[in-house]
Formats: sequence, structure tokens, C-alpha cells
Amino acid sequence: MSVKIPEALTCPIPKTDYDTIQMAHGAGGRLSAELVEKFFLPRFRNAILEKLDDQAVIDLPPGRVAISTDSFVVSPIFFPGGDIGDLAVNGTVNDVAMSGAKPRYLTAGFILEEGLPLEVLHRVLLSMEAAASRAGVNIITGDTKVVERGHCDNLFINTTGIGVIATHLNISAGNLKPGDKILLSGTIADHGAAILTTRKGLSFSSELTSDTAPLNGLVEAMTTICPEIHALRDPTRGGVAMTLNEFARASHVGILIHEERIPIQSGVRGACEILGLDPLLVANEGKLIASVPPEAADEVLAAMRQHPLGRNAVELGEVTAENTGLVVMRTALGTHRIVDVPLGEQLPRIC
Amino acid sequence: MSVKIPEALTCPIPKTDYDTIQMAHGAGGRLSAELVEKFFLPRFRNAILEKLDDQAVIDLPPGRVAISTDSFVVSPIFFPGGDIGDLAVNGTVNDVAMSGAKPRYLTAGFILEEGLPLEVLHRVLLSMEAAASRAGVNIITGDTKVVERGHCDNLFINTTGIGVIATHLNISAGNLKPGDKILLSGTIADHGAAILTTRKGLSFSSELTSDTAPLNGLVEAMTTICPEIHALRDPTRGGVAMTLNEFARASHVGILIHEERIPIQSGVRGACEILGLDPLLVANEGKLIASVPPEAADEVLAAMRQHPLGRNAVELGEVTAENTGLVVMRTALGTHRIVDVPLGEQLPRIC
Repeated sequence: MSVKIPEALTCPIPKTDYDTIQMAHGAGGRLSAELVEKFFLPRFRNAILEKLDDQAVIDLPPGRVAISTDSFVVSPIFFPGGDIGDLAVNGTVNDVAMSGAKPRYLTAGFILEEGLPLEVLHRVLLSMEAAASRAGVNIITGDTKVVERGHCDNLFINTTGIGVIATHLNISAGNLKPGDKILLSGTIADHGAAILTTRKGLSFSSELTSDTAPLNGLVEAMTTICPEIHALRDPTRGGVAMTLNEFARASHVGILIHEERIPIQSGVRGACEILGLDPLLVANEGKLIASVPPEAADEVLAAMRQHPLGRNAVELGEVTAENTGLVVMRTALGTHRIVDVPLGEQLPRIC
Repeated sequence: MSVKIPEALTCPIPKTDYDTIQMAHGAGGRLSAELVEKFFLPRFRNAILEKLDDQAVIDLPPGRVAISTDSFVVSPIFFPGGDIGDLAVNGTVNDVAMSGAKPRYLTAGFILEEGLPLEVLHRVLLSMEAAASRAGVNIITGDTKVVERGHCDNLFINTTGIGVIATHLNISAGNLKPGDKILLSGTIADHGAAILTTRKGLSFSSELTSDTAPLNGLVEAMTTICPEIHALRDPTRGGVAMTLNEFARASHVGILIHEERIPIQSGVRGACEILGLDPLLVANEGKLIASVPPEAADEVLAAMRQHPLGRNAVELGEVTAENTGLVVMRTALGTHRIVDVPLGEQLPRIC
């Protein structure tokens, strides 16, 4: 296996007898314990994790609890703008946050390939540490398994996130109402374009970078201004098109969007053209779509634009009573087309 | 990839265009949705999962919350007594239960290999359904990723479990007290011996079967009789030896066990001898070890023996003030030896 590690380490790799992952690192014996003590604990240390019981015990404040799980298998594991580590933290933080919850805790399950350089693991853990700190969440329990060389691909990470929802919020894909405004927090297709150009070894005048970021702060700014937000979702796999179609079907409404309002970086647009990708179908990892009562839309949009992760937010369209279950786009030419969901993927293993 | 599917399906496989997993099944498009609608939902259906939001929203009763996560990579995925599906449910149910919590909810993250027969997935999901039903837990949210052929090994499953701990319980590996009795719920090494003999193609006069089972009912019976139980743990990877060593170190006590009291099936003993394994180091998936105040030990042991999963429970030994951090075994010959923790594994990928 060959992994290109992107930059100088900010923190030296712990000294160990082995340079690479051995089968015994996943077997629950002394080498497993060394991995926990030298690699995991120094990165994620907190009072709950430190107990090293087989389960974490937490006190949750009153409120409904939001739980989300995701396995991350992105390839390559290091890419411009991020790596599998911060992606695994941000991805689950965002899924929890899209219920309006404040994400508080993450679990982390690692599947490591025999022979993985410990430097790669260390680098990924440093990213997870930084991402967890930025999002304000603690990693409170975890698990490590090792499989033989050739039986996984470097490493896979599962994260499960837990957050608490303020009692006055009621945010769900099934809550869209005709008349709602559809807001989008920024440029589309950045993550997918960064992964695919890296994978294909394409170079562009400006490097395309993933937008991976934790959106819980942006969600908090939005729900503080407008607790009546109807729906939130981050358009990851399947892109903006998939999220809007899920909204339309779950709420039995139509959605009309306006092509000329879609924010997209010129480099990303160019990459998608060369690669034959529809940017509406390409994954994002630091963007959200909201359905907001019309009377609150301007205020929410203004709040989004004041947040660093919502500077390029736009009103993308509106929810309609007609075209139930469908997403329709008014094109730049003034025609209308249905924005459909692809049968499969455009991009495998983008997260 | 070749997978031996053990028995006739109790429920016919859903009709689909493909017989095997395609990359597109993991891409968030229409084939992903088909997998959810035809395979996952019919097995795990409940009001929370059905919403198909990117996160599950639950109401938890008052109490501390226990959370545990585990990734399962067992090989082979079907083995005598179980498969990766019920193992993934029972393993996490047990880790949650060992805090004294009542497990209530599970998340499930699947990493599937391109080309995996859908019949294999279906069979594993049927096992998960049966195991979740037996344990009384609901699977409330999930995730599916697909990686290219040769980049994982059939399928890997992560489960994260959530349970609520009654406020009067205080159970932790750090709570052992000198004088406590060490109770063991039944025969040791059954799971590891079943996996290894299957993997090596060994046959014995009687088939060895895994003990995979949900222990939450047994824990409830024990904590009802004796809320003062100090510690509980299921001796999985690293076996009874690892759990006892973890107890001794976390509580700064010694542990003395008696070799002639260790319950072990003769077939398992024979397999371990042939394979050169110390049964104390071999994984269990349906057993627990408890540290109990001496005055309550007889009553707890009696309660364990009345439970189907504790019929062969024994008092294995006691907690001592001397030999801090060590586990000592009085052998059948009357000598004493230290029961140490292995450097690595005896058995890779047993769970």
C-alpha cells in the first residue's frame, strides 16, 4: 500500500517498537493497549474516555437526543482541504446538527489494514483531534480492529454522534411547507471535485479543495434567529439534487430552484465539465440546505452570511404545492427541467 | 470471494435487478435507496428508523446514558452458532449492559464489498433482526458504504449502542474491593474455539458452537438482586485473562482465581490443546465476569444460575489486597501462577 502523507507533522509520532500496524494491534492484548495509550488517548483525552471502560457513561441535559452514524471509506485518505480523519468528525457532527441538535459526543471505530504506517494513523488522529476541537465535541469511546493486508484499504473510520435538541425546535425533512424559501449556505460540489481531481491526478490552475467543515455553529446561528426552520440537511452523497429530492418526497411538495442562483467556483465548474459531472449531483461536506418560512428567509439568510461558513449563502428557490415529489429547475435560458436523482453514483468512495 | 451460506433462508430474498452488491449501492442514489427499502427497512422497521432522516431522534428516560461502539470484522462471517450479524448486535448490547444499563437503541454502519451476494447480506440482516428482537433493542439509524472488490472482506459492520443506567447503580472496572467474589457466568472459550476450528477446517466429535448471546437480561436479573455489584465485563478479545487483568489494574487490587473451578466444555478444552491455545485467553461472546460484595455473592450466583445464560455460573475466585495489579491462579496442583496478558493476539478477527 502506498499513501502520500501531505505535510509536516505538527506533533511528533510516538515512539513504538513497530513502524506499521500489526495484526496484534487489533487483538485486545498489550499492543492494542499501546495503541490506545500512545496514539488515541493523547489526541482525544477527556474524563469520560480516560476511564477506558468498554462503554462511556454520560449525563445528558434534558431534551430529545439526536444520533447519527457514518462509516468513512474515502479514497485517497489525504486530499486537498482535509483527510479521512476530519471528514469522519465533520460528517457526523453535521448529520447530528441537521436535526437542530448541539452535537456533544462522538464514538470512533477504526478498521486498520495490517501494514498501515503508524505515521498515517497518527496524522489522521491529529486531524480528528483538531476537527473535534473546532466542532466542540468530545470523542468518548472507541474500538480498533485490524484486518490482514489486502482485506481493507488503509483504514476505515466509523463515527457515531450524539447531540441534544432544544425542546422548541422541530426540524425534519418531512416538514417543508409550500411557500418556504430554500436556502443554500455556499458554493456547491467543492468536496467531490477535490476528491475526483486528486484521484485522477488532474491539475488545474487553482487547486480545488474540499469544503469539509463542522456546520453546528452555523446551524446554531440560524436556529437562534429563527427557531421555526422547517428542514435542514447537508447535501453530501448525491449532492444538492439528492437532498432536494429527499425533501420533496418526504414532505409531499414540489421544489423550484433557479439555475442562475447556484453558487459554484469557476475551477469547480471547469473540473465538472472536463469530468462530465453535473455539479448538482456532486458531494459537499461543509454546506447545508434549509427550508425556511418565507417571512423569516431574509433574516436567516443575513445570519448565514455573517457566519464564516455561510458567507456565500443564497436563496436558491422555493417550495411549491404543485409538482409534488419533484424538483424543478428554471434554467438560465428560462426553460424548466426536472432535477432527477441518479441511479447510482457519479463518484464512489467520496466519503 | 466465496462465502458458505449455512442454512435455508427463513425469509425469501427480496427481488432486485442485481444479485450482488454494486458500487452504486453505496453512492446515495436510487440503488442505495432500494437497498434501504428492500433489505434494511423490512428487517429493522420501527417508527424512528422509518423517518429516514440523516439522524435518529429519541426521547430518553432520566438517568445516565451508556454508549459503546464496536466494529465487527469476524472471519468467516458465518460460523457455528452465529454470524457477523448477531455478533454485531450481541457484542454491542453486551458492552452497554456491562455498565448496568438497559440497552435500548443501536445504530448500524455497513461497509460492503462490491460483488457481495445480496443473499449473504439478506442472511446477515435476518440474524441482526432476530438478535435485536431477542435483546429488546431497536436499530434506529444506519449507513451503508460500498468499496471496490478486494478492498474489504465481504462485509464489516459497526454497531453503536445506547442504554440508560438506573440511578442507583455504580458499576465500573475501577470499583473492585478486596474481599469481593469474582463470579463467571458459564463455560469459557466457546466463541474463539468455534471460530478457529471453523477457519482451520478442523472437525471434532461434537461441533463447537459460538456462545454469542445478549447478556442484558442476565445483568438485569443480577442487578435486581444486588444493586451493589461493583464491576461487570464480558471477556471478549483477550478472554477471561484480559478482563481480570483490566479489573486488577483499574482497581489497584489483586485477583486470585482457582483453576479447578473454571468451567470449560471438554470439546473446547480438546480443541484448545490441539491448537496450542490457553482457554483463559480465548474470546467469549456470551459470558460475563462480575465482582460482587462477598455478602451478596451466594444470592447473585443463585440468580445467575436461574437464568438460561447463567446456568453454569461459578464463583471463580476473590479480590485481594495483596498482589496489586496482578491476577494469580491457584492451579489444580496447588501451585500458584501469574495469569498474564498476551502481547498480541492468539486469534485475529474473532469479532
